[in-house]
Amino acid sequence: MSMKAVVFRGPYDVGVETRPRPTIRDPTDAIIRVRLAGICGSELHMYRGVQKTAAGHIMGHEFIGVIEEIGSDVSRFAVGDEVVSLFSPVCLKCWYCKQGLTNRCIEGVAFGTQKLDGGQAEFVRVPFADGTLHLVPPELDESLLIMMCDIFPTGYYGASRAVEGLLTQHQSPLTSLRDSRPVKVSLKGQNGYTNGTNGLTNGQTNHITNGDAPFDPLGSSVVVCLGCGPVGICAITTALSKDIKTVLAVDSVEDRLAEAAQVGAIPLNLSRHNILEEVMSRTQGRGADAVIEVVGNPAALKSAFELLRPCGILSSVGFHQDELPFTGLECYLKNITMNFGRVPVGTVFTDALECLKQNQGALKNYVTHELSLDEAATGFDLFEKRVARKVVLRV
Amino acid sequence: MSMKAVVFRGPYDVGVETRPRPTIRDPTDAIIRVRLAGICGSELHMYRGVQKTAAGHIMGHEFIGVIEEIGSDVSRFAVGDEVVSLFSPVCLKCWYCKQGLTNRCIEGVAFGTQKLDGGQAEFVRVPFADGTLHLVPPELDESLLIMMCDIFPTGYYGASRAVEGLLTQHQSPLTSLRDSRPVKVSLKGQNGYTNGTNGLTNGQTNHITNGDAPFDPLGSSVVVCLGCGPVGICAITTALSKDIKTVLAVDSVEDRLAEAAQVGAIPLNLSRHNILEEVMSRTQGRGADAVIEVVGNPAALKSAFELLRPCGILSSVGFHQDELPFTGLECYLKNITMNFGRVPVGTVFTDALECLKQNQGALKNYVTHELSLDEAATGFDLFEKRVARKVVLRV
Repeated sequence: MSMKAVVFRGPYDVGVETRPRPTIRDPTDAIIRVRLAGICGSELHMYRGVQKTAAGHIMGHEFIGVIEEIGSDVSRFAVGDEVVSLFSPVCLKCWYCKQGLTNRCIEGVAFGTQKLDGGQAEFVRVPFADGTLHLVPPELDESLLIMMCDIFPTGYYGASRAVEGLLTQHQSPLTSLRDSRPVKVSLKGQNGYTNGTNGLTNGQTNHITNGDAPFDPLGSSVVVCLGCGPVGICAITTALSKDIKTVLAVDSVEDRLAEAAQVGAIPLNLSRHNILEEVMSRTQGRGADAVIEVVGNPAALKSAFELLRPCGILSSVGFHQDELPFTGLECYLKNITMNFGRVPVGTVFTDALECLKQNQGALKNYVTHELSLDEAATGFDLFEKRVARKVVLRV
Repeated sequence: MSMKAVVFRGPYDVGVETRPRPTIRDPTDAIIRVRLAGICGSELHMYRGVQKTAAGHIMGHEFIGVIEEIGSDVSRFAVGDEVVSLFSPVCLKCWYCKQGLTNRCIEGVAFGTQKLDGGQAEFVRVPFADGTLHLVPPELDESLLIMMCDIFPTGYYGASRAVEGLLTQHQSPLTSLRDSRPVKVSLKGQNGYTNGTNGLTNGQTNHITNGDAPFDPLGSSVVVCLGCGPVGICAITTALSKDIKTVLAVDSVEDRLAEAAQVGAIPLNLSRHNILEEVMSRTQGRGADAVIEVVGNPAALKSAFELLRPCGILSSVGFHQDELPFTGLECYLKNITMNFGRVPVGTVFTDALECLKQNQGALKNYVTHELSLDEAATGFDLFEKRVARKVVLRV
C-alpha cells in the first residue's frame, strides 16, 4: 500500500511524493496514522543546506495521530489510541533512559532524517513506542499539542536549566554565606557575622541581609532569552512560570518580539537597541544572571557570554556547529556555568505539558499557518522566510 | 621600621629583601605578624614566567599569624588574635559577597601580586580584615591549616561542584523519569510505566528500577581527578568524603599518585596507563560521570572533555589562559555541563574546614618541606621541580 509523504530532495527543495506505507519492523514498533504534523525550526538547518545530509527521506519530527498497528512487545498502547510523539525514540531500557537522561538514549535518532523517516506523511513507523509516544491529553488544542513533540520541551529545558542553575547557586552551601545569625553589614562595627570557628550550623543558608525582606533569588534575577522564534517563546513562557519576573527577549524580527511581549517578556530589537547597555542598566552594571540561548550560532553564543554577570548561568539549547567564541581564560575569569545540548524530552514531557496547559491562553494564536500536507513546500518557504511563526500540516 | 620579605624579581628569581613594615592604610585593614606562609602551585604560573607580571612585589597568598594592629572599622578581631587569611580579600559588602559569590568580590585581588603585597614576609597588611580573616581553629595542626588559605577550599570547590552537578542531574525533575510507581523495565509486557497523562505526582523522583536496591547516584558514579598536585589531593579527599566511592586520580608524578592512593583514589599514571581505556572499562564504555580538572592547560581540558560520558559534569578549577579545546558541536552532542573558575573561598571556608578536619589523619604528611623564610628561593625551586609536595616557610 502507498501513501503521500513530504520528501527532502535537497536544499530548498521538499515535495510530496508517493511512498510505500511503513509496516511493523520490530516488535516494539507502532504505526501511526498521522493527523497533524509540524514544521520545526531545527528542520531549517537541513532545508537551508547548512546541515549537510543525503536526500530522499521523509521530513518531520512533530506529529500527532492515531495508532493503526502495534508490535507484539508494545504494552502501553492499543490500536485506536490517540497519541503524540517525541521527536526522537526513547527505548526506556538503556543506562541513559534509566537515569532520566533520555536525550542520550542509545537508540535516539531524530525522526525526519536519513536514519529514520519522519511524520510529515500519512503514516509513520515509531520505534520503541512505549517510550516514544504519549496519550493525547484531552485538555489541549491539537495546534498547541504539536508543540509538545519538540519545541515546548526544548524551551522548557533551556529555561529550567537556567532557573535550576540560579537556585543551585543560591541554595548551595558552596555559594551562600551561612551563619546562625544573619549578618547586618550596614551596621558598622556591630555586624553579627561570626567567624568560621563558632556558631555555624551545617545546612543553614542565611544570606547576609540588611534586615530587609528575605532575598528572592528568582524574582530578583534578570534572565535574557536570545532568540524569540518558537523555542524562544516556549523558554520565555517557562521562565516566567518559574518565578523569574524579568525576562529580556532579544530578536530582530518584530513579529517574534511582539509574541515575546504577549507572553510577558520585555522585547529588545537587535537592530534598534544596544542589548548590552539594556542589560547593564537593569542590573546595576553587573550583567544578566542567566542567559537562555536558543539560536544556535557563534554570534548568539558570544553575545550570551558577554551579557552574563560573573558567576552567571549560560543555558544553551541552540544547535551549535562551530568553535566556541570565548576562551578558557574568559571562562575562568567569569566563573561561568554552562549547559549545552538537547532536551531529555521523554523525561520532561509531563512537567512541560503542565506548564503549557497553564499558559495555553497566552499561546493560543501561536500557530499562524495551518496548511494541507500537499502544501508542505509552501509551508517550508513561509517558515524559512520568517513570514510564518509556526506552520502545521493537516493530513 | 623594616622587615624581611620574599620578593619576586622575575621568572625563576625570588629572594629575601628588606622592605618597610606595612601600616594601616584603610580603617578596615589589619596588620598580621606572619608565623607560617605557604608556597602555592598557582604562584608557579608567575614564577615560571607563564603569567606575565612586573616584578618587585612580595610573594605569597597563604599565611597564618597574629594580629599586630587593626583599623578602626575592624569589628570581628582584636590585637593578639591568631588568624588564618583567605588568598584574596572579601569585603562582605558588595552585591557578590551578599550573594555568597565571594569569588567575584569587587574588592578581590590576590595577595602576592602587583596589586597587593603577599604574606611571605614578617608582616602583611590585610584589607577588609573582617571578611578576609578567620580565627585559627584549635583542632588543626598549622601545617594543615595553611591549606585552608587556598588549596583545600579550591579542591573542595572543584569536587563539590562535580558532586552538586551529579546530584542536580539525578534529583532534578528535568532528568528523572518520575512516576507514582517504579517502572519494571525487565518484565516485558508487564511494566508499570504509566504515561504522562495520569498517575504522576510532581516532585516525586522514582527512577526506573528493576526491583533492585535504590539507585545511588553518587556511590555508583565514577569521578576522575585530572592532576594530583596539592589541589588535586584536596579535591579527591573531598569527593570521597561526599559519598563518591570511585575516584580515578590521573598524574604523571609517582609521588603525587602515591599520595592520591593514600587518601583513597585509584592512581593512574599518564605515562603507563591509557586513561581513556581505564575510564571506559570502569563505566561499561560510557565515560566518567564527572571530571574535576585542576591542571589549567588545554591538554587537561581536552582530556577532561573526552573522558566524560554524555551529560557528564566538567568541574574546572584550573587557571586557563588558552582557547577552549572543543567545539560548540561537541558540547551540544555531549549535552555537557561545565563550571569554571575560582573558589568563593569566603563562603566555603567553614564547610571545607570541617572536611579537612575529618581527613587530617590521611593528610598528616602532606607538607613535605618546612623551611625558613630565608630559604624561600630553595623552596620555590624544589616545588617547581616537583621534588617537594608542599613547601611552607616558617617566619
